[in-house]
Amino acid sequence: MRLSRYFLPVLKEAPAEAEIASHSLMLRAGMIQQLSAGIYNWLPLGHAVLKRIEQIVREEMNRAGAIEILMPTIQPADLWRESGRYDAYGKEMLRITDRHERDMLYGPTNEENVTDIFRRHVRSYKQLPLNLYHIQWKFRDEIRPRFGVMRGREFLMKDAYSFDADFEGAKRSYDAMFLAYLRAFSRMGLTAIPMVAETGPIGGNMSHEFQILASTGESAVYYDAAFEEVDLGAPDLDIERLKSLYAATDEMHEPEKCEVAADRLRAGRGVEVGHIFYFGTKYSEAMGATVTGPDGSDVPVEMGSYGIGISRLVGAIIEAFHDERGIVWPEDVAPFKVGLVNLRPGDEATSAMADELYAKLEKAGVTVLLDDRDERAGVKFATMDLIGLPWQVTVGPRGVAAGTVELKARGTGEREEMTPEALLARLSA
Amino acid sequence: MRLSRYFLPVLKEAPAEAEIASHSLMLRAGMIQQLSAGIYNWLPLGHAVLKRIEQIVREEMNRAGAIEILMPTIQPADLWRESGRYDAYGKEMLRITDRHERDMLYGPTNEENVTDIFRRHVRSYKQLPLNLYHIQWKFRDEIRPRFGVMRGREFLMKDAYSFDADFEGAKRSYDAMFLAYLRAFSRMGLTAIPMVAETGPIGGNMSHEFQILASTGESAVYYDAAFEEVDLGAPDLDIERLKSLYAATDEMHEPEKCEVAADRLRAGRGVEVGHIFYFGTKYSEAMGATVTGPDGSDVPVEMGSYGIGISRLVGAIIEAFHDERGIVWPEDVAPFKVGLVNLRPGDEATSAMADELYAKLEKAGVTVLLDDRDERAGVKFATMDLIGLPWQVTVGPRGVAAGTVELKARGTGEREEMTPEALLARLSA
Repeated sequence: MRLSRYFLPVLKEAPAEAEIASHSLMLRAGMIQQLSAGIYNWLPLGHAVLKRIEQIVREEMNRAGAIEILMPTIQPADLWRESGRYDAYGKEMLRITDRHERDMLYGPTNEENVTDIFRRHVRSYKQLPLNLYHIQWKFRDEIRPRFGVMRGREFLMKDAYSFDADFEGAKRSYDAMFLAYLRAFSRMGLTAIPMVAETGPIGGNMSHEFQILASTGESAVYYDAAFEEVDLGAPDLDIERLKSLYAATDEMHEPEKCEVAADRLRAGRGVEVGHIFYFGTKYSEAMGATVTGPDGSDVPVEMGSYGIGISRLVGAIIEAFHDERGIVWPEDVAPFKVGLVNLRPGDEATSAMADELYAKLEKAGVTVLLDDRDERAGVKFATMDLIGLPWQVTVGPRGVAAGTVELKARGTGEREEMTPEALLARLSA
Repeated sequence: MRLSRYFLPVLKEAPAEAEIASHSLMLRAGMIQQLSAGIYNWLPLGHAVLKRIEQIVREEMNRAGAIEILMPTIQPADLWRESGRYDAYGKEMLRITDRHERDMLYGPTNEENVTDIFRRHVRSYKQLPLNLYHIQWKFRDEIRPRFGVMRGREFLMKDAYSFDADFEGAKRSYDAMFLAYLRAFSRMGLTAIPMVAETGPIGGNMSHEFQILASTGESAVYYDAAFEEVDLGAPDLDIERLKSLYAATDEMHEPEKCEVAADRLRAGRGVEVGHIFYFGTKYSEAMGATVTGPDGSDVPVEMGSYGIGISRLVGAIIEAFHDERGIVWPEDVAPFKVGLVNLRPGDEATSAMADELYAKLEKAGVTVLLDDRDERAGVKFATMDLIGLPWQVTVGPRGVAAGTVELKARGTGEREEMTPEALLARLSA
């Protein structure tokens, strides 16, 4: 993409309303624009990151055997009356009356709807296990939305729902999601710490929340160093061991009871980005979702639900990866892999080399943002540092004369002069 | 995907509530399930088709230079008061009050929001042309939703918005979308006929709607045979000529005035799937979206909007491609390219060959649905015909003994025996 044809409305000043780093940087980098309290437009750069994260989550869900569907945003109140949550859910639920005066709502979550899909189509334990997920916008009418996309009202969430004939099956489904979550966050460059969690308004008795580590995170967390050493590709990965490792927020942390050796106890700060629940037959009993078991009798299906805040993750990743100059994207979620700076668009030889590199990188399947604007070098470098693409390539008249370009790693700041050929080989790898 | 691990709740009977072919077939093939009037769950097969169509539209928008963003579903009423549409829009607009008693609405379209984005960030004609699009769910509270996803209340739409400094630029933007639409529909296997259209509630004075041909279409259409012969890859494609070709719905068709030679005048039936508008400064004037022109004076920006009904297209394509046994997907929108039937899952040699073919096709990047269920052959063939995958491959004990499998083209019904190697070569091409 050529920046002259892109839409990247970066801001020079940090917006006064932003209280945390990710909110400020997303506004400054032209990733989002507020439309109403807690409701955001995703501008091209922000949208690109959102899609990358969504795709990683999708791939890990599919890999774990979950099947993608899409449930609508607007739901009838009657389904929620069946589960008892229509009255129980507070003012966070956005209630709507349609033109025929029917009570509707903007889904804050989808247990009722997915249980309804299940009970209409599944009859036998032989059709199980089943895990249905979707990636859809939700609405929670937070009384005081803040922190940008970290606590918005309209937000994108992946929610999966597992159905099993018995507890053993439900536990296998739960464990598969536990592992899928660790893998998804790891692919985003994050270290995720699973913590035993309260089950809250969803109900149930087995639950973990996933906090990712970020120095500016919202809560203090304590955890066993083993979490930093897990090999998620190991075929014999021991989920039970992972679940037994020590991890606690400061509210739950009790130094005198913690058995982790002092040199193995890590303290950090975390941002919650996912939550998984086993809640048994809470919804299936209330809504009559049963299957016929091997012995011919009907049993309510065992369920769990598994959420990842996709739009929240955009902010959370920035909390984990930024410095005083801007965002530092991990490669797998970066909106473009390479930022290519043409230092002198007016110079024929410089532009020829920049354009050639741009074409060759794109042809090799590398995503590139080419800064071909007629701007000062300082403005271009500041923009590149702000938007945080992993690799910056600078093409200028002096280098062109010497037959070289400069490669800079945004993360380390390391710079290297090399020939265009060497650069192509390096970045296309 | 193995059918035994998929979620494909096909129905044996045609549902009584379905009045048209696509609605009936989508329910029977387990693609959708109604949640509330005009609001549907997209089950795995339906979701897969929706994503394929979305991706074709995205690629053609990007190719035409449009840039993807994502605007939220919920909008503040105040923006619509600026344009005057909050009161003008009828009961189709789903109006919402949030917990702070602010008037909100579920966006039926996004002219106001995108104009607001523009006016906050763009100052100069030098930043133009600009075309921003998004693919997002909309809500229109139809008084009588019907025909399944063809006239739903919650629906997925691609809407693009162009911004230009003058009429000449706006016309270029309009023409680029006109061409992108023809290309997108063509890639879906459809013949699209652009018709001069009334501008309706959006306002403006240059507009086309795109009808795709389907024998069961909602309106009769008359058109110049030249539309069936257009080479959309031609670098010198003459958009003005295309616009001047005869095309009319029966309401507008006047046989005595039509100048197309009798042997070149085609009559068919059409389904509207897209609509493009140039509306000049209607919104930019009302909302103060101006740019500084080359002479230093501020002018309201020239705009157009361009919609494609993504969820509607799923139904429209089925209207165009089905027979008495089920759906016949064009290859580029099919949920899987190949349906692989294992006729005898209990037979070791048969299962070995089916599994091997399945693995090799997937490895070659071919999407496959393997029917590995313990069902009668008749049920399996009927399911495959119903869900309409372009290629059906049957592996049975007799063929395995002879070293062959059967390939059937869903569209023509042609069958051919061949070796597994020949089959792989054919389908991987």
